Amino acid sequence: MSEPKQVFAENVRALRKQQNISQDKLSKLTDIDRSYIGRIDRGEVNISLDKLYEIAKALKCQPVDLLPSINYSED
Amino acid sequence: MSEPKQVFAENVRALRKQQNISQDKLSKLTDIDRSYIGRIDRGEVNISLDKLYEIAKALKCQPVDLLPSINYSED
Repeated sequence: MSEPKQVFAENVRALRKQQNISQDKLSKLTDIDRSYIGRIDRGEVNISLDKLYEIAKALKCQPVDLLPSINYSED
Repeated sequence: MSEPKQVFAENVRALRKQQNISQDKLSKLTDIDRSYIGRIDRGEVNISLDKLYEIAKALKCQPVDLLPSINYSED
């Protein structure tokens, strides 16, 4: 299974593209550094709750829309 | 409105108590340092995605169960 930060990255990217929001624009909307947005986009960083909410607000979605569920049946 | 980390703290505490899981036990279940668990419990820290998932797994719930929704009607 992919790590949460990787699935998060894919979900952010999908919503960004749907809404025509570039990484630059997301950086401005969230006040998160442009290079950090790039690292988020590549699934490299374990973002904090604060940043999760900033990004969700910029994409007008809920945190849950960006996060993978835990599959307990796999255990 | 309370900050996400404060609502998160309240939700973790509620689920912990429901399941009779002490802060000590949660620390052992998650491999998160005991003092850090204390700071999470007091809503002091902006935890990372990784830790969010570790805690959700220890409490056998989904990340969404621990996170407040964004209320867009307030905007």
